[in-house]
Amino acid sequence: MNRWIMGALALAGWITTGMAQAQELIVEKKIFELPSFTTQSGRTLKQVRVGWESYGTLNADKSNAVLICHFFSGNSHAAGKYAAADPQPGYWDAIIGPGKAIDTDRYFVIASDTLVNLNTGDPKTTTTGPASIDPDTGKPYGLDFPVVTVRDFVEVQKALVESLGIKRLALVAGPSMGSLQTFEWAVSHPEMVAKAMPVIGAAEADAMLIGWLDVWAAPILVDPDWNGGDYYGKAPPLAGLAKALTAVTLQANHQDWANATFGRRPAKEGEEPGKALANRFQVQSVLDNAGMARAKLSDANHFLYLIKANQLFAAGGISLADGMAKIRAPMLYITQPKDLVFTPDMVARTVKAAQDAGRDVTHVTIDGVRGHLDGVMSMKQAEGAIRAFLAK
Amino acid sequence: MNRWIMGALALAGWITTGMAQAQELIVEKKIFELPSFTTQSGRTLKQVRVGWESYGTLNADKSNAVLICHFFSGNSHAAGKYAAADPQPGYWDAIIGPGKAIDTDRYFVIASDTLVNLNTGDPKTTTTGPASIDPDTGKPYGLDFPVVTVRDFVEVQKALVESLGIKRLALVAGPSMGSLQTFEWAVSHPEMVAKAMPVIGAAEADAMLIGWLDVWAAPILVDPDWNGGDYYGKAPPLAGLAKALTAVTLQANHQDWANATFGRRPAKEGEEPGKALANRFQVQSVLDNAGMARAKLSDANHFLYLIKANQLFAAGGISLADGMAKIRAPMLYITQPKDLVFTPDMVARTVKAAQDAGRDVTHVTIDGVRGHLDGVMSMKQAEGAIRAFLAK
Repeated sequence: MNRWIMGALALAGWITTGMAQAQELIVEKKIFELPSFTTQSGRTLKQVRVGWESYGTLNADKSNAVLICHFFSGNSHAAGKYAAADPQPGYWDAIIGPGKAIDTDRYFVIASDTLVNLNTGDPKTTTTGPASIDPDTGKPYGLDFPVVTVRDFVEVQKALVESLGIKRLALVAGPSMGSLQTFEWAVSHPEMVAKAMPVIGAAEADAMLIGWLDVWAAPILVDPDWNGGDYYGKAPPLAGLAKALTAVTLQANHQDWANATFGRRPAKEGEEPGKALANRFQVQSVLDNAGMARAKLSDANHFLYLIKANQLFAAGGISLADGMAKIRAPMLYITQPKDLVFTPDMVARTVKAAQDAGRDVTHVTIDGVRGHLDGVMSMKQAEGAIRAFLAK
Repeated sequence: MNRWIMGALALAGWITTGMAQAQELIVEKKIFELPSFTTQSGRTLKQVRVGWESYGTLNADKSNAVLICHFFSGNSHAAGKYAAADPQPGYWDAIIGPGKAIDTDRYFVIASDTLVNLNTGDPKTTTTGPASIDPDTGKPYGLDFPVVTVRDFVEVQKALVESLGIKRLALVAGPSMGSLQTFEWAVSHPEMVAKAMPVIGAAEADAMLIGWLDVWAAPILVDPDWNGGDYYGKAPPLAGLAKALTAVTLQANHQDWANATFGRRPAKEGEEPGKALANRFQVQSVLDNAGMARAKLSDANHFLYLIKANQLFAAGGISLADGMAKIRAPMLYITQPKDLVFTPDMVARTVKAAQDAGRDVTHVTIDGVRGHLDGVMSMKQAEGAIRAFLAK
């Protein structure tokens, strides 16, 4: 795999910049099942299952638990490896592990898959969503699955955490959509969150982000194989989902990366893009290939439900000011000024609302050429800030 | 039509902020035909036709001609009205007209449709592209139409200009894709361009823009009605083209506009977006409706050929440094720092290359909440700079 493809694929969390550590975590995927779960939209689902992992050991008084929430296209593999031979560890391995910023010698770190997780084709992901079998009908839910929200993701995590006897989390943290869950936790269950670390996100999706998320979804809706969401047992809308994932990958990156990595090179030597409609630039073929590789392991309806959950997001389902007023946890808010998804002005509104509400918020920025993705790939930069935040 | 739809449609050039003037230009659409035209890609096309307009009077020594080049989804209607009752004048009417910055009492202003112009369903647009009848076969070209470039657009304009006996243009100007044509003119025909005024563009498309243009095109490629470009006489890929135009409209705007105009309001009172998958926010429905309205007058293959021309663009087909070295015209370069299409860093590279080559370039910025679109809608701000530039 060449370095360009590696770069494009990094969104998947398949590849991170985390260096191999002498002392590696070996982790196992577990499954949590709720016999019954009622969504914010009022539907009761049976046998709701999500995958989860943990790193470190829960202490006797159960006061050392940390919850890590994953990003849009990620899953609960936040740190460590399933086997020593795995090519890459979990996506935040640079800051989670023995002796690392989120020190698993000290903390019991939990990470769980969300509802409607994208990676239905990945055996290491367990989720409940439109692709799951409805126990009442024996068939996939399809679009009969109810709308779910970031709050629903949080409520499932809360049930998981409580099933372990944990009453309060020492830290809730996550990048991107993981930061939305972090804000939601801090607003909806302030008594359960001792500290919060939202990364590359904001406490509310603005109109522009709602619009962008529709741009991501558009190719799925137009793909005839999507068929109004009814494609289980038939050909899935692979072409549309691949194009959707291409858009995600592009916007999650930054021009500094695209220009430095691809420039205006043709995809194939000798096939100049100007010579034929089908001849392409390298940036086009790499992004498309990465999108298709991801699409084969993903579900298009889950993508659309994730889009909806992100569009609906406003922490606590209330105004930014009212949401911030409910938070009790000190916050370490880590963002990247080149972020094209959660833009600096969205971040600034969140910071201002937190400050106006008198919250204890420390805002630090990280740098890099990946833009949004630096919040997944370049977190080592924030190590000092995280250690200081956890120590205070 | 409510103000939100007006905003979203403004990209079409249907609506501008140009105020009605006491002294209005009444213009007529004309057609220019080339019996034969050979593209940069080496194909000779017969009967190449483009529409054009002019404002003002060509002087005796034919030294007062100005050429205005249109943007991606625009056409040659740059100023004036076809009839006094027209709801809106041409897109740059704020700066083109009697006594205005580009003063038609003084200049003879020409504006022409490009090849592969998007607006094939608009009776006021004339263009040659995949939707045109190939005189050799009596059928639409479809994807048999050759790849065309911004240089091809310029060569057709050059033939038009020369057919009027004009040997040198006092000014070449245009917004967005019009600025690409402006740069191309200045690099490829330096002896013919006395002054150049590129607006909200750059002298080279970077890797990121190439990627974004693919995101715009994606829904067309996935639409089954696109059918590999073979849809003439059948149902056109309206759904895909509408989604493509929605993406264009969003990226041509800015979050300051989206947030102030739509916020998180639902599309319909009482139909909360969280209640059902189909319930939407206002920003979603307005953008989709605007995209569909545009799609009905547009051609999907033309859209794809325009995407290709923009992706291929590097002024002169050479490096930025080599291109700038060829320019002789003083330049007034007008950009908008909030531009999400031609980003500030792409603009900065163009400015630096011009300065490094010792070019006479004046860079001014305009402001507003529309981002890229301010270069179409808010040009009155640049009036003083344009007058000073033309006077020097």
